[in-house]
Order: sequence, then C-alpha cells, then structure tokens
Amino acid sequence: MLARARLRPRMDPHHIPPSPGTRTASVLDPTAVAETFRSEIRAELAALPEPLVLVGVLAADHGPSYTYAEYTRKACEDVGVRFEIRHATRLDAEEAIRAANEDARVHGMMVYYPIFGTEQDVYLRDSVDPAKDIEGLHTFWARCLYQNQRFLDEAKTRKAILPCTPLAILKLVEAAGFFGEGERPLEGRRVCIFNRSEVVGRPLASMMAHDGAHVTSFDIDGPLLFVPSSSGDMHEVRETTVDRATALRQADIVVTGVPSRSFPVVQGAEIREGALCINFSTFKNFSDDIQSKASVFVPRVGPMTVTMAIRNSLRLYKNTHPGG
Amino acid sequence: MLARARLRPRMDPHHIPPSPGTRTASVLDPTAVAETFRSEIRAELAALPEPLVLVGVLAADHGPSYTYAEYTRKACEDVGVRFEIRHATRLDAEEAIRAANEDARVHGMMVYYPIFGTEQDVYLRDSVDPAKDIEGLHTFWARCLYQNQRFLDEAKTRKAILPCTPLAILKLVEAAGFFGEGERPLEGRRVCIFNRSEVVGRPLASMMAHDGAHVTSFDIDGPLLFVPSSSGDMHEVRETTVDRATALRQADIVVTGVPSRSFPVVQGAEIREGALCINFSTFKNFSDDIQSKASVFVPRVGPMTVTMAIRNSLRLYKNTHPGG
Repeated sequence: MLARARLRPRMDPHHIPPSPGTRTASVLDPTAVAETFRSEIRAELAALPEPLVLVGVLAADHGPSYTYAEYTRKACEDVGVRFEIRHATRLDAEEAIRAANEDARVHGMMVYYPIFGTEQDVYLRDSVDPAKDIEGLHTFWARCLYQNQRFLDEAKTRKAILPCTPLAILKLVEAAGFFGEGERPLEGRRVCIFNRSEVVGRPLASMMAHDGAHVTSFDIDGPLLFVPSSSGDMHEVRETTVDRATALRQADIVVTGVPSRSFPVVQGAEIREGALCINFSTFKNFSDDIQSKASVFVPRVGPMTVTMAIRNSLRLYKNTHPGG
Repeated sequence: MLARARLRPRMDPHHIPPSPGTRTASVLDPTAVAETFRSEIRAELAALPEPLVLVGVLAADHGPSYTYAEYTRKACEDVGVRFEIRHATRLDAEEAIRAANEDARVHGMMVYYPIFGTEQDVYLRDSVDPAKDIEGLHTFWARCLYQNQRFLDEAKTRKAILPCTPLAILKLVEAAGFFGEGERPLEGRRVCIFNRSEVVGRPLASMMAHDGAHVTSFDIDGPLLFVPSSSGDMHEVRETTVDRATALRQADIVVTGVPSRSFPVVQGAEIREGALCINFSTFKNFSDDIQSKASVFVPRVGPMTVTMAIRNSLRLYKNTHPGG
C-alpha cells in the first residue's frame, strides 16, 4: 500500500535513539496520511458513473457537531463528493435519517452525535440503513466485525464496512511503521487502549486482536484482554487483573480516547521506550513529556476518520452497484 | 377483560373521600392483578400441543439478578412453563444468547441485566432473536411500538410484542380503574412519568400517548411531551418547558422509575387529589404521605412484569406456530 511504503522508512520503531530521555518523537500528522488516501479516493470517484452524494444529519445544538459537519463538507468537496448538511431538531432526527434512507439520490450518510446524549442515540444509530451507514456504526456492521466476517457474500465481492474511527487508527498505526511483514500485521504486538465504547474502543480492540495483537482494554468497568484466538481467524476476550502500570510498560502501542478531564494523562515515565502513542479523544490524554519517550505521537485522528468514512461510502457504493 | 371488571368497582378514582387530607389510598398489589392474568395464561398453555420452554440467561455477578431469575423460575412453574436458568460469565453471555437463539427446543428467553453495565448491554439486548425475545426489548420490537404497528402481517394474525414492564404498567393502570370507555382507553388523561429509558420510560410514554394520554416525560436531560397525534393512530413528541410542579399538579397518573437515592421523592402535596401513583423502580420514589392524596398506590410492578413476559412468550409461540 502506498501510505505504508512511503511512511515506514522515516518512522522505524526499532530505531534506538542516541541518548534515552532526549528522544523527541515524530509527530504524525493525520492530515498528511489522509492525503495519501484521498488521492486514491479521488481516482476511484472519478471512475464512477455518477458523483457520490452524502448527507450529514445535524440535529444537535452542540458546537463541535457543527464544526465536524463543516469539516466533513470540506473533506467531501476536496475529493469530489457532494455533501449536503440536513438540519433537524433532535425530535426530527429519526425522520431525517429515515428520509435519507429512502432517498435513492443519497448514497450514504453521517449523523452527528450526541443528539439526545442518552441511550436513545443508540436507537438512532441503528435507524440508519446499514447500506448507507458510511460510519460503520450499525449493529449489523458491528456483528460482522466481532465475528471477523470480512465479506457479505461467499464469492467475497462485497466487503463488510468497518467503523471509521477504529479503521482510521489502524491506518495510522500502519503509517507510523508499526505493521509487521507477517500474515497478521500486528502479530506479537502489545497494545493498551483506554476506552471500550461500542463505537471506538471495543471494535478497535477486536480489530487489533484479529490482526494478531495482544490488547489490554481499559474502561470505567475495568480491564479486559482481547487476544488472537488459537484458530487464527477470530479473537478471544478474557478477564484480567493487569493494572495500568504493567499494561503501559509492556505496550508497543498506546491508544487513548477518554473524554474527561479527570483521566490521569499518560506520562512519559509510564510508557515503553519507542512506543507509538495515539490520542483520538478531543481531550488531552497524554502528558507533554510523552514525546521524550515515544517514537511516534499521533495527537489527533479526526482528519483520518472523515477520510475513512468517505472511503467506506465508496465501498458501500460498489456493494450496491457491483457492475459500476 | 376479567381483571378490569373485577378490580374497578373497589378502586373508583372518581370516588370523593369524606375529608380531604385523611384519604388513604388503596394499595394495589401487583401479585393479585398478575394472578388474574396467570389464570388465563394457564388455560392457554394447557391448550398448546407442547409445553413452553423458556431460558433465563444469568451472566451477572449481581444479587438482584439472581433473585429476579429465581422469581421468574417460580412464576413459570406456577403456570406450567419450563424454565431453565443458564449460567454464564459476562464474556460468555453473547454465546449463551446465541445458543438459545439456535436451540429449537427453546421458545423464548429472558436475559438478566446489567451484565456489563455499559452500552455493551444494548448490543447484547439486540443479540436476542426477536422471535424469542419475551421481554420485547429488541430494537425490532421498539420500532414496531414507536410506529404503532400492532401486527406483523397485513392479515393481522401475528401480534407485535410489547416490552414487558411498560405493558405491565398499562395493565396495572387498567386494573386500578383508570381506563375510560372510549375508543382510546387513556383519552384525555394526563400522565407524568419520571424515567425515559429505552426499556421502560420512552416506550411507556409512547404507548400511553397512542392510547390517548397527554404524557409529560422527565429524564436527566429534561422534559418532553408525548401526545396523541391528530390523525389518531400515532403519537407526537414535542419539546416543552413545563416544570415538575406543574406536570405533577395536573397528572391523573404519576409513574416513577428513578434508580437513585438522590431523586427528590414525590410528595403528597405535589400530586393531584385522587391520582394513581405507580413506582416501578426498586428505589422508593414516593413519600409515605402519598397515600393521603392518591386514590390508588402501586408500590411495585415486578410480579406483573414477569407475568407479561410469560404472556409475550405465548404470543411469540402463536406467531411461529399459527396452526398450533
């Protein structure tokens, strides 16, 4: 893959710094990685018989959602996708989603959460037609993921959609040079993730374990281990009593996504020399001194998330237009 | 209906007490109401060509879940249903649910929550085959409910399943004598509900509005109104700024389900003279003096919930065995 070949040489995690303690991590800009994918997406879009039309359902009276919707619009325009923001009240959100589901002109949609900020948002998430769910958040796609079902058909022509933020993080791990050459790209890697939400942390832990990693997943209800199964094509989840200090000390890759100021940020002294550190939260989850110990630091994921959502929309289009 | 005819005379909400302030509300025992339904269920079960087999998936290390599972077992045995408790760890819960889904010998299942106590429980809830979901909690059934789709087929032979706790509450409202004689049994009634969870409060508000009531629904994110739509066969949800005091003062029926000690319990002084007060939380949500003002007080709903789940299992059986 283009991104991998281009980015690996300058970010070798096995590189030993001249004097420990003075290392300054490379900061990996997700916008730069996203650009390599956007080039591919532009080329693929240009080959389609019609322009892709995506809809953003903006039903929240919530500043970050406006910002994110506007950001999506720009990213779509950048690659040649038509993007329409549809404004709704929170009470009209379900109807707006249903209208986009039924609108044959619309190829995919993104919904900006939180809308209610309660479990009702999960209900809304599952109101999106999976065939238009470019974020890959529907339970239908979650089930494919947890069962490592990568295709929808026996002939393996229709690919399952992966949730866009976990997918973005995996692509950043690859771009940072942390994929190995084996059959499973994260074989033997140890990963520590702070977040086990249904939209990012749990699917990410599962995807990484499918790729061969040994993942310790922390959330408010404690740690769990996600490990490759012995059969090799699935993963297992196990209870564990491992603590934060041990998990961090062992981790080649540390991923944080804790939307809280009360989370004790991860310090340089806690991590392994040369680790890859990725934060997908909008909060600061790493201490500034992380760069004296990490080899690569990814301070945000957002631009890659939107790019992966657009990439998903291409996959969904191809799934429903097999001859196209 | 048997329960209605039998219970209404002694609980007439229109009865004026001799001296206001000294009224002592009738306490409606849900076990007594459940018994009238269980008699009907016993008769229906006896007419089936085979005994019903239900499974309880008990995956929580949580005392109340054990108690509830044991209670379900007794209720099932009481009416002649075979009930098997299947123990699992939280990590095996999904597999236990899948096994019960695929087990042709099993007609229905109940899953005891919380298991993870996070959004992952919603994922588990939707792992139950809707055709075996006797609690009526699957998103498939929620969608039927919100769209007021009462049957699965055009011929109206296969009934949609309603979530068992809201259904239990509606049956208790009926038993308390608060159903009118009109086409919609709650026509003109004002209701105040404290709880808008996806499993009880929101579906209950929706069902009551379908039945003609004007419902104010309070939750941590504020109040919403659920009102009958002008077309008469649906309901509408509207934003409102009504406060607790006003909503309580106007309510003919007050339903509480707040699982927190910090909820300010509803006081006798806050409610309307002669109101029906129902608490489905395991916490005390009404002050002791509520009985000096209410006409009927229902301190708990549990026994009716289990009975409605068993009743749902009969409906599901009939849906899948139309000739049976």
